[in-house]
Parts: sequence; C-alpha cells; structure tokens
Amino acid sequence: MKNTCLDATDIKLLDKQVRVHLINSLGGFKSVALVGTKSESGNLNLAIFSSVFHLGANPPLVALIFRPSPPERDSLRNIIGTGFYTLNHINEAIYQKAHQTSARYDSMVSEFEAVGLTPEFKKDFQAPFVKESAIQLGMALREKVDITINNTTMIVGEIVQISVPEDCLFEDGFIDIEKANTITCSGLDSYHKTIRLDRLSYAKPDKEITSIFAIE
Amino acid sequence: MKNTCLDATDIKLLDKQVRVHLINSLGGFKSVALVGTKSESGNLNLAIFSSVFHLGANPPLVALIFRPSPPERDSLRNIIGTGFYTLNHINEAIYQKAHQTSARYDSMVSEFEAVGLTPEFKKDFQAPFVKESAIQLGMALREKVDITINNTTMIVGEIVQISVPEDCLFEDGFIDIEKANTITCSGLDSYHKTIRLDRLSYAKPDKEITSIFAIE
Repeated sequence: MKNTCLDATDIKLLDKQVRVHLINSLGGFKSVALVGTKSESGNLNLAIFSSVFHLGANPPLVALIFRPSPPERDSLRNIIGTGFYTLNHINEAIYQKAHQTSARYDSMVSEFEAVGLTPEFKKDFQAPFVKESAIQLGMALREKVDITINNTTMIVGEIVQISVPEDCLFEDGFIDIEKANTITCSGLDSYHKTIRLDRLSYAKPDKEITSIFAIE
Repeated sequence: MKNTCLDATDIKLLDKQVRVHLINSLGGFKSVALVGTKSESGNLNLAIFSSVFHLGANPPLVALIFRPSPPERDSLRNIIGTGFYTLNHINEAIYQKAHQTSARYDSMVSEFEAVGLTPEFKKDFQAPFVKESAIQLGMALREKVDITINNTTMIVGEIVQISVPEDCLFEDGFIDIEKANTITCSGLDSYHKTIRLDRLSYAKPDKEITSIFAIE
C-alpha cells in the first residue's frame, strides 16, 4: 500500500477547502452531539457539534470547542447568557436532521422546528433536550477558556442531569452507547455507526489483557 | 424503553469507579491514538490517549488532554522537553497492544518493546512513529493550557507531517479513515470499528441535504 506524505509546507500550500477536509479527518473519529439552548428572550436553538470531549469524571466535566464563525454564535451566547445547555447523543434515525442544524439559520429560527426534531423540557432545567435522543445530558457552564492560538473558545460544562436507557447501563457504570445507537463522525460530513470489537481489562505491566465483555 | 435518570446529587453519591466508567461513556465515541515520544536522554515512550480532538484546520491543530496521574507524565515531560511527538491512528490489528500501553511501566521501559509495536523513524523528525499505524502524524508543540477546574493540561500541537494511505485520500481532502481501519473507543476500555452511514452535503437553510458519498 502506497502512502501519501505531506510536510508543513505542503499543508500550507493546500487549497483552503481541501485543507479543512483533510485536517478535520486526521483527528480520528469524533464525538458528535446536538447542543440545545434557550436564549434569554426564550428562543430555542439547536446545533450539531463534533468537538465534544470528556474532560474528567470528578467533577463530571465535558468540554466543547466553539469556532469564531457566526453559526455557532447563537449557542455560545445562550450558554453564557443562561449558564445552561443540553448535550444530546445522535443516533442513526436522526443524523440527517442533526446535520441540517449546521445550516446558517437566523437567530430567531428554532432549528428544532426547521429540521423536525422535538424539544423536550424537564423539571428544573431551562434548556431544551432532544426528545429523539436516547442519551441526554443537562449541562451547567463551569468555565470558558479562550484559546488564543486560533481564536477558538473552550466551554467546560458540568453534567448535572443524565438520562440513559436502562438496558444500556452496566453494573460497573459503563454505558453501552453502541446499544443506544449513538453514532460517531469523521471529517466534516461523514457519519458512522459502530461494531464493538471488545472491552478490555485494566492494563498492568507483565499481565495479559483479557476481554471483559462477551459479545452476544 | 425505560430510562435511568440521575441528577447532580445522584452523580456525586456514585461509587468512584462506577462514576469514572459512567462519565467516560457519556461524552460519546472518542478519538483514540498512540502518542509516541522520545525523552531528552533518548528513551522511547508510547501511550494511548482517548482525549485527542481537532482544534482547527488553519493552522492545522490537534489537542490532547493530560490528566494529573503518573502514567501520562512521561509523555508530557517528553513533549515539553523536546517540543515534538507523533499521533498514530489505531486499527483493528493493534488495538489490544495499544490498550496495553496504558499499563504503568517504568519511565525507562519502552512501551514499544513491552507491547510489541515497532518504532519508525523518519527523516527530520525526532519522535518515533508507530510502523503498524496506517495514519501517522508528526506534531510540533504549540501551546500548553492549564485547565484549573480539574487540574488537567491541554497540549495543542500543530500537524507538521502527515502520512496516509494513498487510496484513502479523496480529491476534496477527505480521508476515509474507516477504509484505513482506524477504530474508535467509548468509555475507558471499549473499542469499536465503524460502518459508514453516509457523507452529507454542506447544509443550507431551505435546501435538502444529499448524499455525497456512494457506498460501494
């Protein structure tokens, strides 16, 4: 198999759109989720993000990267304005609708309505969840970190509400997100479902790792 | 389907290990890669990271989160000491070996040797690549960001070398990482291969999204 090799100069000389596709592909498969917010004046907003990442379990933190471009500005303004948002896993049944939320709708337009997803409100939580998502997280803003090198913003949130299908939750705390039909994405626009290879035991020097998950 | 619901108090009361598994699962599927480094005194180090994320395409940036725990300290020290490291995609043939690099080996032990992976050196690059990885990135340290809320460290690196299989690289820049057998992970220990659902066209308001990828 032949390989294509690029160095820093080659990368700089790439056409801008080619570079965007290429670099977005190189980070590997990404967590992708729908971020639900409500503006201070009550407008609902929904946006797909493929820059979701686990930051730590204690406290339970998940982070998101915001680019400086306009379509993400509504979500960021609402999160900072209200302090709350939701993260909703995307499954095979809704990934096209989820992708459509990335269109540049006006601030006044609810993407829930525009793409055909259902806002779900729960007691004590002001931001809207996505009813069609099997795994839903209620998030409270904890920290905003400006990343100066490329003018992006990291939003760190604490998980304060969790809803997961009972039959996907294991005794040891592991959630079988594959069973919940959560999908992943690569690059800017490629969506993938998954097939489990295995769950592996905690690794120790001089000890064979073993499977801790019998595939049914 | 019944759902299990937890609020902030329920989450706090969870057994520590259960919480670690649970919260690690909630962020969705993760990018996972092998980070290769060489210490200033010449020792090789290899460690698996599931906190890899795309930060931006121009400049081409990928970030990593380091927890304060000891096993990750060798990689971090080497990256800061030398300014260079590699990111190597993990495929189905090597994921058990990749997982085994998370064992707490002594600083003097090369995880390449301990788990049976092959260090590959390329001209002009001092950090070791993983020969068995189909997609290899040479990285230059650009920024270290301390995340005070949970004592983690974000390392931002610029992609300065790329090696990808020629037949996985599309004309528009997209890399078919699924075809390169790149895998993803969920939680602490679950590994998954993928099946593409589709590539979707750039979303615009009032326009139907279409497939831009004919599945062979």
